[in-house]
Amino acid sequence: MHVDALWTRVNLATFEAGDGYGTIADAAIAVRDGRIAWRGPRAALPRGLKATRRYDGNGCWLTPGLIDCHTHLVWAGSRAHEFEQRLQGASYAAIAAAGGGIRATVQATRAASEAQLLAQSARRLRQLLAEGVTTVEIKSGYGLDLASETRLLQVARRLGERHPVHVVTSFLGAHALPPEPADADAYIDALCAMLPQLQAQQLIDAVDAYGESLAFSPPQVARLFDAAQRLGLPLKLHADQLSDQGGAALAARYHALSADHLEYSSEDGVRALAAAGTVAVLLPGAYYFLRETHLPPVAWLRRHRVPIAIATDCNPGTSPCTSPLLMLNMACTLFGLTPAEALAGMTCHAAQALGLGDDRGRLAVGLRADFALWAVDHPVELAYALGGRPCVGRMVDGLPVDA
Amino acid sequence: MHVDALWTRVNLATFEAGDGYGTIADAAIAVRDGRIAWRGPRAALPRGLKATRRYDGNGCWLTPGLIDCHTHLVWAGSRAHEFEQRLQGASYAAIAAAGGGIRATVQATRAASEAQLLAQSARRLRQLLAEGVTTVEIKSGYGLDLASETRLLQVARRLGERHPVHVVTSFLGAHALPPEPADADAYIDALCAMLPQLQAQQLIDAVDAYGESLAFSPPQVARLFDAAQRLGLPLKLHADQLSDQGGAALAARYHALSADHLEYSSEDGVRALAAAGTVAVLLPGAYYFLRETHLPPVAWLRRHRVPIAIATDCNPGTSPCTSPLLMLNMACTLFGLTPAEALAGMTCHAAQALGLGDDRGRLAVGLRADFALWAVDHPVELAYALGGRPCVGRMVDGLPVDA
Repeated sequence: MHVDALWTRVNLATFEAGDGYGTIADAAIAVRDGRIAWRGPRAALPRGLKATRRYDGNGCWLTPGLIDCHTHLVWAGSRAHEFEQRLQGASYAAIAAAGGGIRATVQATRAASEAQLLAQSARRLRQLLAEGVTTVEIKSGYGLDLASETRLLQVARRLGERHPVHVVTSFLGAHALPPEPADADAYIDALCAMLPQLQAQQLIDAVDAYGESLAFSPPQVARLFDAAQRLGLPLKLHADQLSDQGGAALAARYHALSADHLEYSSEDGVRALAAAGTVAVLLPGAYYFLRETHLPPVAWLRRHRVPIAIATDCNPGTSPCTSPLLMLNMACTLFGLTPAEALAGMTCHAAQALGLGDDRGRLAVGLRADFALWAVDHPVELAYALGGRPCVGRMVDGLPVDA
Repeated sequence: MHVDALWTRVNLATFEAGDGYGTIADAAIAVRDGRIAWRGPRAALPRGLKATRRYDGNGCWLTPGLIDCHTHLVWAGSRAHEFEQRLQGASYAAIAAAGGGIRATVQATRAASEAQLLAQSARRLRQLLAEGVTTVEIKSGYGLDLASETRLLQVARRLGERHPVHVVTSFLGAHALPPEPADADAYIDALCAMLPQLQAQQLIDAVDAYGESLAFSPPQVARLFDAAQRLGLPLKLHADQLSDQGGAALAARYHALSADHLEYSSEDGVRALAAAGTVAVLLPGAYYFLRETHLPPVAWLRRHRVPIAIATDCNPGTSPCTSPLLMLNMACTLFGLTPAEALAGMTCHAAQALGLGDDRGRLAVGLRADFALWAVDHPVELAYALGGRPCVGRMVDGLPVDA
């Protein structure tokens, strides 16, 4: 057997079984044509295997590259001063009335040049990559009209071309009502009309919506989802973050790839997710930043065997977070996940949440050779530590890239 | 006027007034003999000022170097697996009964070579420096006998010699009872006897104790403090973290530099701190990691004008944290501090908590030229963002060092 690359002196966390780390100690892993060609204990390495390039892992741990499956990475402007205003006593409502909140981001994003959007978003993207991310989902949703949403999605694609990372896009036109006078039903109609155009430009990998009493109602979301489904587009849903809107059941009814947030989902909603094969994406950054106290239903998710993914939710209003490792810790500390569950949530289950579970997120033969290399004694340390930069290497499609 | 170094095109957050940022926009700051020689608006720069070296701040913000005034940075071993065990359902008590907890760290620390201790601690120290720290306090307390405590303090001093940072030490022999059979009173006697020897070796800048029902009682702490005070050693106290033990009042009675944690302090305790000029050091990392729900009395601290400092509390059991910037965010998000208060807590008030308020922690003429340079549009972003590495430069004693 001849391979392109061979790593030895590494410990693998394969996440093959979907629970536990799937550890292979003192292992080797071989790559051919950007895919995993072999992995196992070094002692079992096939005799006569020849490798074009050889890497010494120096006893480090190698995991699937991290997958951040829920971000709003592309925006312009800053909401840091709103954070300060709130801590000085201003309410969300007062800030919104003064032109703040998501509208401020929409305004700044529409006003920014493409170069500005790219530069500001690239800075955030590089922070994710420095912590081991090899696939990132990026939502639109700060444009809220066809031209602006198109530009956001183009910037997302451009980021993927210019950086060593896979970018997956979701169209989140249904993020909020646009600043222009329009009622929600008319806006949903407009979004439905945008879908074929965006799809024709290959700008959208999935369609997402924010289902909440302060955003779009279940019938409105359903109308958008019907239109997306007719086009064969996969679905995602921001569900039950601030109240139980039946979002989990709605996502399940449409066999969405994922239902995200879920703090207020009912057990029936969780049962529906399980039956539909929909992934639960938990977002501890927003829970923390909003000082939410209602925990997502982790016990029900476990009981009904719903795969749990974890993501940064990187956004300026409720989770200004570019640290996937901090999210692992918060998933454990705040939500009570085990470190192995949290890591599965940023590898195998995050891949499932993007419809890519057969392509990446595990160290299995045939899967994409996207790796992260960690200078730790055990992967549990990735979830335990607050701070530090343990990622010492990344591979994307079998090619070594900067950590 | 001739100076060694001159920074221009910087915005300064001076923290001179002790509240607010003390902003000077489009400023200049000059250094001579490792001290601040001049700072003010660039337009007011003295004519004819000559500088040996000139630095272009490129529009960045320059603040006092961060001061992490409460850490247990030097230890060996890892407690990451205990974190995992707890999340798998084990209780603290069960883990302690199985040899875990602080005893595990004491055992690993005693068993480690000095080189191992230095290497493991240096890794953590470098993470603090990468986020702008120029002064760090390091406590002993994982040795719990004279030889081991001496070694820990020597390692702390060595770290300060080998890295571009000022290290301040505190003797925390009264951290826990040692594993050897001994009653607490006899152990306090032993600690009192250690003080002159440690002081003669110039290993201790202050004496600290853990006052808590599961550690040392107020009379025991008082006995140690009496011995320390006879030697002229400044005092600090871990006070009222898990219950109101009257720790704040005890610290105040001894005019301690700081009382640390304070979750359960009474308003009378806070009044006593104010009268004594003792700094309140709040530790949001431990509050978060322990899922504590009883908030420290921030409103009382403000009402009685007690200076509030913020620190990482870096330790393996309750705050495995090497991110001062994350602590700024947690001080705001969890404790409700404003970003300016949080930053004052890691600059001017942290200096006070180490008895160095006249020497550093503000950008004032005559003070030590310890700076951090930040690639942000405003210092509020340092407290707002979760993740990222905005520190792009440090100066220690007026010399540029790696960020």
